[in-house]
Amino acid sequence: MTPGYHDDKAAILARLRRIEGQVRGLQRMVDEDVYCIDVLTQVSAASKALQSVAVELLDDHLRHCVAHAVESGDAGESDRIITEASRAIERLVKS
Amino acid sequence: MTPGYHDDKAAILARLRRIEGQVRGLQRMVDEDVYCIDVLTQVSAASKALQSVAVELLDDHLRHCVAHAVESGDAGESDRIITEASRAIERLVKS
Amino acid sequence: MTPGYHDDKAAILARLRRIEGQVRGLQRMVDEDVYCIDVLTQVSAASKALQSVAVELLDDHLRHCVAHAVESGDAGESDRIITEASRAIERLVKS
Amino acid sequence: MTPGYHDDKAAILARLRRIEGQVRGLQRMVDEDVYCIDVLTQVSAASKALQSVAVELLDDHLRHCVAHAVESGDAGESDRIITEASRAIERLVKS
Repeated sequence: MTPGYHDDKAAILARLRRIEGQVRGLQRMVDEDVYCIDVLTQVSAASKALQSVAVELLDDHLRHCVAHAVESGDAGESDRIITEASRAIERLVKS
Repeated sequence: MTPGYHDDKAAILARLRRIEGQVRGLQRMVDEDVYCIDVLTQVSAASKALQSVAVELLDDHLRHCVAHAVESGDAGESDRIITEASRAIERLVKS
Repeated sequence: MTPGYHDDKAAILARLRRIEGQVRGLQRMVDEDVYCIDVLTQVSAASKALQSVAVELLDDHLRHCVAHAVESGDAGESDRIITEASRAIERLVKS
Repeated sequence: MTPGYHDDKAAILARLRRIEGQVRGLQRMVDEDVYCIDVLTQVSAASKALQSVAVELLDDHLRHCVAHAVESGDAGESDRIITEASRAIERLVKS
């Protein structure tokens, strides 16, 4: 099965690599005793970048997986996939 | 100058390495076309882990840097450092 | 046009009334000089309750408005409504 | 005991009254079947307003209650109040 983010795969991987770089940068900062507030600013930036990836993944998921389930006309499957999406949104909003 | 997290440095570095591993795991998941919702669950987990690091850094910052500024008796410096801490908290709450 | 939350209207109104009560309770606490941390705990509770309402509204929106747009077979409308939902999710995640 | 927000009491009460108005506005919107996305936009606005109140309360708490505990020279009390503040920050970041 093709995931919803299939067409955005390269862009999402590029974003995740950038976030990995931010987290490695954080380790360097802590290792070099950088001032707490500067480390915290970078944590906030990495956190925002992760949330943007999540919003992108959710958009793709609605646009493809949820839309296909609805188009299939299978009410049970459509219901199940929307409940699953709502729970993912909830975890995200509360994280 | 010693940063507030000095005594927790090893633990914070260990957490950040674990988060780096989570972000690398995310790349592997996307690369292997793992289902959107499973990727999103892992994004939420990495996001929570980053926020826990931030809360730890803030705790250390209050306990050391803010406390020392207050103890110094320099009202201007104490004021400046608390304003700075509040802005870091704000960025974190809004990220 | 019927909004997606039509069938849950009474429950959502009840939750909003409870949140209004929490916000009024906050005013009473501040008015009576209640300790900062206790006020903050109640702010977090009201904030969580508001986010739960948002998650409920989004679930209803996906289940009805988005699903109907997809079922209509109008690709342009379906695209528009999913973009709109994603932006609402983004505002929520960042608020 | 005077709470940390004592000097900002009028401003904080004014903000809370405005938030109460927003939550009442939300009830009116739901009652009048306003479109889901418009209700959600208003929920995000009320949520942001609540978080701003929290950031203000925390700033006042650091500036007064935490600073006084540190100045008192009682290490145990100072420690206790900073742990308490960190937990409030954590609840806020996770709400």
